[in-house]
Amino acid sequence: MTHRIAILGASGYTGAELVRLIATHPDLTITALSADRKAGMAMADVFPFLRHLDLPVLVKIDEIDFSQIDLCFCALPHATSQEVISKLPKTLKIVDLSADFRLRDPAEYQKWYGQPHAAVEMQKEAVYGLTEFYRDEIKSARLVAGTGCNAATGQYALRPLIAAGVIDLDDILIDLKAGVSGAGRSLKENLLHAELSGGTHAYSAGGKHRHLGEFDQEFSKIAGREVRVQFTPHLLPMNRGILATVYVKGDPAQVHQTLAAAYAGECFLKVLPFGALPSTRDIAGSNYCHIGVTGDRIAGRAVVVAVLDNLTKGSSGQALQNANLLLGLEETAGLMMAPVFP
Amino acid sequence: MTHRIAILGASGYTGAELVRLIATHPDLTITALSADRKAGMAMADVFPFLRHLDLPVLVKIDEIDFSQIDLCFCALPHATSQEVISKLPKTLKIVDLSADFRLRDPAEYQKWYGQPHAAVEMQKEAVYGLTEFYRDEIKSARLVAGTGCNAATGQYALRPLIAAGVIDLDDILIDLKAGVSGAGRSLKENLLHAELSGGTHAYSAGGKHRHLGEFDQEFSKIAGREVRVQFTPHLLPMNRGILATVYVKGDPAQVHQTLAAAYAGECFLKVLPFGALPSTRDIAGSNYCHIGVTGDRIAGRAVVVAVLDNLTKGSSGQALQNANLLLGLEETAGLMMAPVFP
Amino acid sequence: MTHRIAILGASGYTGAELVRLIATHPDLTITALSADRKAGMAMADVFPFLRHLDLPVLVKIDEIDFSQIDLCFCALPHATSQEVISKLPKTLKIVDLSADFRLRDPAEYQKWYGQPHAAVEMQKEAVYGLTEFYRDEIKSARLVAGTGCNAATGQYALRPLIAAGVIDLDDILIDLKAGVSGAGRSLKENLLHAELSGGTHAYSAGGKHRHLGEFDQEFSKIAGREVRVQFTPHLLPMNRGILATVYVKGDPAQVHQTLAAAYAGECFLKVLPFGALPSTRDIAGSNYCHIGVTGDRIAGRAVVVAVLDNLTKGSSGQALQNANLLLGLEETAGLMMAPVFP
Amino acid sequence: MTHRIAILGASGYTGAELVRLIATHPDLTITALSADRKAGMAMADVFPFLRHLDLPVLVKIDEIDFSQIDLCFCALPHATSQEVISKLPKTLKIVDLSADFRLRDPAEYQKWYGQPHAAVEMQKEAVYGLTEFYRDEIKSARLVAGTGCNAATGQYALRPLIAAGVIDLDDILIDLKAGVSGAGRSLKENLLHAELSGGTHAYSAGGKHRHLGEFDQEFSKIAGREVRVQFTPHLLPMNRGILATVYVKGDPAQVHQTLAAAYAGECFLKVLPFGALPSTRDIAGSNYCHIGVTGDRIAGRAVVVAVLDNLTKGSSGQALQNANLLLGLEETAGLMMAPVFP
Repeated sequence: MTHRIAILGASGYTGAELVRLIATHPDLTITALSADRKAGMAMADVFPFLRHLDLPVLVKIDEIDFSQIDLCFCALPHATSQEVISKLPKTLKIVDLSADFRLRDPAEYQKWYGQPHAAVEMQKEAVYGLTEFYRDEIKSARLVAGTGCNAATGQYALRPLIAAGVIDLDDILIDLKAGVSGAGRSLKENLLHAELSGGTHAYSAGGKHRHLGEFDQEFSKIAGREVRVQFTPHLLPMNRGILATVYVKGDPAQVHQTLAAAYAGECFLKVLPFGALPSTRDIAGSNYCHIGVTGDRIAGRAVVVAVLDNLTKGSSGQALQNANLLLGLEETAGLMMAPVFP
Repeated sequence: MTHRIAILGASGYTGAELVRLIATHPDLTITALSADRKAGMAMADVFPFLRHLDLPVLVKIDEIDFSQIDLCFCALPHATSQEVISKLPKTLKIVDLSADFRLRDPAEYQKWYGQPHAAVEMQKEAVYGLTEFYRDEIKSARLVAGTGCNAATGQYALRPLIAAGVIDLDDILIDLKAGVSGAGRSLKENLLHAELSGGTHAYSAGGKHRHLGEFDQEFSKIAGREVRVQFTPHLLPMNRGILATVYVKGDPAQVHQTLAAAYAGECFLKVLPFGALPSTRDIAGSNYCHIGVTGDRIAGRAVVVAVLDNLTKGSSGQALQNANLLLGLEETAGLMMAPVFP
Repeated sequence: MTHRIAILGASGYTGAELVRLIATHPDLTITALSADRKAGMAMADVFPFLRHLDLPVLVKIDEIDFSQIDLCFCALPHATSQEVISKLPKTLKIVDLSADFRLRDPAEYQKWYGQPHAAVEMQKEAVYGLTEFYRDEIKSARLVAGTGCNAATGQYALRPLIAAGVIDLDDILIDLKAGVSGAGRSLKENLLHAELSGGTHAYSAGGKHRHLGEFDQEFSKIAGREVRVQFTPHLLPMNRGILATVYVKGDPAQVHQTLAAAYAGECFLKVLPFGALPSTRDIAGSNYCHIGVTGDRIAGRAVVVAVLDNLTKGSSGQALQNANLLLGLEETAGLMMAPVFP
Repeated sequence: MTHRIAILGASGYTGAELVRLIATHPDLTITALSADRKAGMAMADVFPFLRHLDLPVLVKIDEIDFSQIDLCFCALPHATSQEVISKLPKTLKIVDLSADFRLRDPAEYQKWYGQPHAAVEMQKEAVYGLTEFYRDEIKSARLVAGTGCNAATGQYALRPLIAAGVIDLDDILIDLKAGVSGAGRSLKENLLHAELSGGTHAYSAGGKHRHLGEFDQEFSKIAGREVRVQFTPHLLPMNRGILATVYVKGDPAQVHQTLAAAYAGECFLKVLPFGALPSTRDIAGSNYCHIGVTGDRIAGRAVVVAVLDNLTKGSSGQALQNANLLLGLEETAGLMMAPVFP
């Protein structure tokens, strides 16, 4: 049986990535695509790389008959998402890709996003969408909140280590390198090819990046105490991919074993042999996350490096993985494509 | 039933691309992988992006038991390929990705490749692998010769026009822009990131590029007279993709109609509306070829632009499409993935 | 003696490139910088790469005391330029980098730019700024009109050939590959790194690009008859550089000799040995133009390839070269820096 | 008066960069260029971007008459350099760009470079070439050892902080992002455009990178005790530029003030306002180093970010700056060009 899918916000990169993935999914059919300013256009005119697909015309959200939809992906901008979702039928299964339902505490939401939350009840109901750690809750959820792409990368490197108590919780540092598609299709000077290519810079340094809210919430929950990490993201001249270099204090071999054991049964999370470090080139276009661990010449320090594709495992691939769970399908359906290299 | 596949030359880009594609093919199993200098290594160590797959260890060719193989892809260097293939069992189905069996005339082979052919009989037997134009011959063939990636791009733009007699055969010009993966994993200074990125240059200009041998053979055969085109390839700072800008003398509307009609039933060949021109970004990682046509302010001149991914539709995707035909499978099996953008 | 310089439109790439070049010029001092929307800002905040220079704060144009200026570069958008320049003191020396004064015929201007010219008298007065061909006129001019960057590249390849009558005037084809900085700091989706990098496409094909107006004007003037060329520009994933592949009918050796002879005494125009073709990588950041010629296997056809840096020799370097002439300085002052490679 | 310059190893990137810089230096003339395997070739054939210069033909080192040379740059590979330099006339002024004379302690050299030093006496004589910190010694030296490019970047961020005692010496972490030209013109698969572009990875992680030898030597000397830093370099898809993100424990304002005060009089070292962080794009092609400091939400932690161009300030620009001192010239001669952006 085919499940009928709507994608709200189909004119952005995560919306288009959802269409790319669903195109080869055996059990899903795209029934509705929305894009506010581009309503009326064919998807092939907004994203010519999808020209070969037979897709519905872009419409405004209120033109969609949600009684004909089984699951709705919401790839709208932050703040808009909560407005829209709060008005959708309460029976509709929803996977949200925005930041709106990631933080369970309204005060934390307001702190990081600068405004009160407009749908506090739904905020409580939402399940945090880091699939491998919330699998059971997601299966029985109605609303899943996709994680931040940087937040996912850092958590894959750190959650098992915090849970196992093998690292110093007061000295965790995440130096992250991110490709530009994570910034979306925003028209900003520093995202122009002429300005971005061939160079790099740090941004939102010093504890300002919003994904810290997710790190705080999740790491503190696991540890049973407040955990605050350092986090500096850098923008790199590449389109897809995040590499998080995570510096921890702990025994490197134990760090490696803990991660390897935690992910031994996971389809998409691959821990490399000790000492081998991953490259973003090796996961681009796929739902895989590669994790490597090495020691340092200074005893008791370890470096964990995690890579994933921000548009796939970091957002739309994760969203589809969660949607599979919500619909009772095989978790990996539509997600087994290999990375694209070179 | 699963068909057992061997890939010879699996440590190059086209070999790895075959593995990527076959990984999600429902009816094929990779049984053997060869790589001469890297024999004994795991594929995951040569191409970490394939780490998630359960693949046979790389071996030398003579370690393969070909009685257990149903079809063999040969992704070896030019000249090596004919040596190897001439020694394989005569009953084995083979798709060759090298240049060795593209030219039917031994004299032409010697002219373009600078040495006599070592397997002249097999050269005659081989079917030219431009699927959409040799479909019936391929279905009943044993040995299929993959086309040059540039040669495929130019032919998709031109074959129907030559066949229909709608353009001047004495004034055809192909200005081609090629990504660097077409040069393979060769260690050459001008292929280094430091030297290639951020710039472009023409190469093999003035009638020297070997793919001219294919253009000459095929276009002359279609026209029933000698046809000689001008062809200038350029190397671009991109990894995947070829864009051929083809200048012809003929009525633009007729040129467009001829191409649209010729490819109306083709799954992978998409002719855009008149005046729209394609981008290599819209086919990267996929088996699609997009073709656009526009006129010029000078009456009687048309510009045809064709794009495809050199590693997919230009080589390994084409090879798999042909293998599907050789094995009696659905022609498009394993090839329906959408392009990856951005 | 130092000459006092104003740059109008200093917040764009050509304005910034002028500042870069003038920074090491021995005889020029930047006295005023304008930027309409960014007035009040320090140049270092708009272009941090100029942080080391002691520059005037950005102001609005009407805040500049032009009685204190010896020469004014105008790097404003098309159409705005003519409005602004028509109000400047009639004694001020001006080098305009926009398209506004390139076409001498008001009808041609309206045809290509879609609106009537607002300063027809000045349009007549302006000298076309292709330095090597208008040197004497520029020396005695007051207003110099910088050429289009694509137009300059094509003309360097073709002017001597048309003048010498060594090529067929009815079959000239310019296939051009352009870096993205030529599009300026415009916020457009297709100029984003995520959309531009890793791919290429043709634009304004079929006789629509505005630089055709310059080709028509100049080539017809030289030939003494109407000359209409074919011209297809392509956008490449590189920041600086234009490569024009020019296809002509004529004797290749004669084509080469004609160009070599024409440019023998030119400092910035380098004709390579016959058969060698240039790369944009070899002129980036400099005022040099490299030109190569080769023949084709089809007798009587030649390929001329010209490369230059669109921001330097194609606009701001050319502008400074012309300013040097206007001010009676050494023509090459401030322009002898080597290209930057890799 | 012109000083006569020889460059040994002119066929590599640092050799070519020296030629680029010296081309506009008022007081230096290139008298000899060596390249072992490319002896006999014109520099324009090895590096066409230098085509416009009138340069001596490449020769083997023993063909050079060093009695006609005032100063010799040695841009040879590590280990080769000490062999060659030990045989040069003892009166010749030398700036070495290799790693051979950076470490004063023969045991440290052997530890990091895996072999005994072949010129121990000269190793002692050599002055470490971090200009701003060894200016007086360099002025009276004969042999100057250029620093590692990564080592220079990290030291500019840290030396004043260690000297002033404002940071915790036991918890210094350098996460470094490097462009690919630092790897030289080596023919390695991972330096190919097809493999490097569009992705990133860490290398020599965990205390293995050789530039740690320089950090250890210099930081311990300044501190008067052993200092060991953590250091993880990453390779980025960019050609020029290094960005070092340095994590320290100390008061951010004090960190900023210490750096700003230390570099207040330095021409090439620019400390940005507190909170502003630099980009590699803003120093490419120049001899400038930009340094930014910010705090963290965790009190007592600061982030220092330093950027420089590895080929200029990180090697050849530094070498020329030192050569100017050795020859009694203006320290900044030939080095005042602005960065190239975009």
